[in-house]
Amino acid sequence: MSLLDLSSELAIGIDIGGTNTKYGLVNHRGEILAQGDIPTDRSPDVTDFINDLYDALSPIIMESKAKIRGIGVGAPNGNYYTGTIEYAPNLPWKGIIPLAKLIGEKFDVSCTLTNDANAAAVGEMMYGAARGMKDFIMITLGTGVGSGIVANGHLIYGHDGFAGELGHTIIRHGGRLHWSTGAEGSLEAYCSATGITLTAKELRQKHSDSLLNNYKEEEINSKIVYECAEKGDEAAKETFRFTGQILGEALANFIMFSSPEAIILFGGVIKAGDYILNPTREHMEKNLLPIFRDKVGLVFSELKEADAAILGASALAWES
Amino acid sequence: MSLLDLSSELAIGIDIGGTNTKYGLVNHRGEILAQGDIPTDRSPDVTDFINDLYDALSPIIMESKAKIRGIGVGAPNGNYYTGTIEYAPNLPWKGIIPLAKLIGEKFDVSCTLTNDANAAAVGEMMYGAARGMKDFIMITLGTGVGSGIVANGHLIYGHDGFAGELGHTIIRHGGRLHWSTGAEGSLEAYCSATGITLTAKELRQKHSDSLLNNYKEEEINSKIVYECAEKGDEAAKETFRFTGQILGEALANFIMFSSPEAIILFGGVIKAGDYILNPTREHMEKNLLPIFRDKVGLVFSELKEADAAILGASALAWES
Repeated sequence: MSLLDLSSELAIGIDIGGTNTKYGLVNHRGEILAQGDIPTDRSPDVTDFINDLYDALSPIIMESKAKIRGIGVGAPNGNYYTGTIEYAPNLPWKGIIPLAKLIGEKFDVSCTLTNDANAAAVGEMMYGAARGMKDFIMITLGTGVGSGIVANGHLIYGHDGFAGELGHTIIRHGGRLHWSTGAEGSLEAYCSATGITLTAKELRQKHSDSLLNNYKEEEINSKIVYECAEKGDEAAKETFRFTGQILGEALANFIMFSSPEAIILFGGVIKAGDYILNPTREHMEKNLLPIFRDKVGLVFSELKEADAAILGASALAWES
Repeated sequence: MSLLDLSSELAIGIDIGGTNTKYGLVNHRGEILAQGDIPTDRSPDVTDFINDLYDALSPIIMESKAKIRGIGVGAPNGNYYTGTIEYAPNLPWKGIIPLAKLIGEKFDVSCTLTNDANAAAVGEMMYGAARGMKDFIMITLGTGVGSGIVANGHLIYGHDGFAGELGHTIIRHGGRLHWSTGAEGSLEAYCSATGITLTAKELRQKHSDSLLNNYKEEEINSKIVYECAEKGDEAAKETFRFTGQILGEALANFIMFSSPEAIILFGGVIKAGDYILNPTREHMEKNLLPIFRDKVGLVFSELKEADAAILGASALAWES
């Protein structure tokens, strides 16, 4: 195959989330030529979901006139080795779903699966803030907390494909109960958007003059907390300080594990900017052994949130 | 060079500890043909130490009549990339010591350095309980707590060579003060021999009938605690249960990081056998997400403690 032929090939990157599934047609330079999304949560049967995906992608593929090299998928609990999604709590399909096989058969091309955070880490390594890095950790702070870990230039999958569940590590023994895992004091219970909302609801009760008290219980979310912080609200700012403290403590532990060159933060929560970044950095440094201090970068993702996972997933297709 | 020549080559493995330094002459099959030790703590000047080492090893090397392929060294805070020992709290030499360069020059062969726990992990991977494994974590439970992490078949060194300081991760926020780092609640503060001794001293005060109360404060150590546990002493058994709980919680966090096939426990503390293994396994499993449960091996090292680091260090020499 000549280089010319290769450059006319395209890959499909798919990012499956609990609510929506985003897809993109990506060329070898990491340019997304077309993209779109379909709902995930309206298909209790995975076959219906794959049919929806096929119906959405077929016209785009036809129009591109390109050969499709392969499909890469990032999904919660996606297993790179087996191509299956296993017991994903936030997806409508229960048990073990052979997703890569089903998609590969429907589209008649090879399909590679990994978890959503790993896909985003690959996207960041190839096209974003981790370009050229051989050792970094990507932490996704969204509805949940995910992670993708790269060491020696390769994603760490572990012996079974499930490595990198840093959101479920326990950072406060006997701490806040997690709403779905039942664990006490996990990183996700504090530093996800869900966790931030819980913290804000606790803290506004201690600050009777807080702007957060102008909202109904069900209205509070991490975006509202950010808006209140911007207006100088103490309870809102304290919410981010506390979140950053917990995150910083957790990052210090992760750094003493794999000694990454940088930690890349990703996901909706980073919209809070310095409100979250400053306390995170402070407590990360404070909890490190001296040999690790002042040398690990702590930066935000350079990719649009939707793009990173699509790009990373598409990169899997080029490698397969 | 023919295979015959290679088989008559030998490597030197050196394991530098705070008190003693062990060395061995090792063949390509991992057989230790000669070994010995010299004191570490009697040489405040590293040049004196290297001269002692040379004086001890020279006759053995001469006698073997073999060509020395290289020297591998495992040492606390040993950096694989730079060949330096950096700010090791338990060694007599302060600051940054270019140990690989100094030894290489003195012996006139190449010298490779890594930290002691990494060396032990390589020894275990080549000749011990981790044979054939591509993903495992070795935890050394001695005076301190060290670790060597293997993923995708390679040691994780991190961007700067200092990865794998799991003993310094914080497992109990605001917990026991560490005697040298000043950190609160680190794994080492509880699960090292030093930590176990502290726990036993606390617990014997709550059990007035404990056999541990027959000893003076300075006599208590992890060996005495084991002997008392063997005699059925409740405070001693409770000491190991508590130690195992903390260790198990920490291991669960580590598993959710790199998803190893097994965790290998190593070092003096494992002489406590099931007293430490059973509670560790119980709390490790209890703190794992369901997808990680009942599939990670938790086993003791299969190598003699002195041999593992010498073998692992010598393996570095073959690779260089």
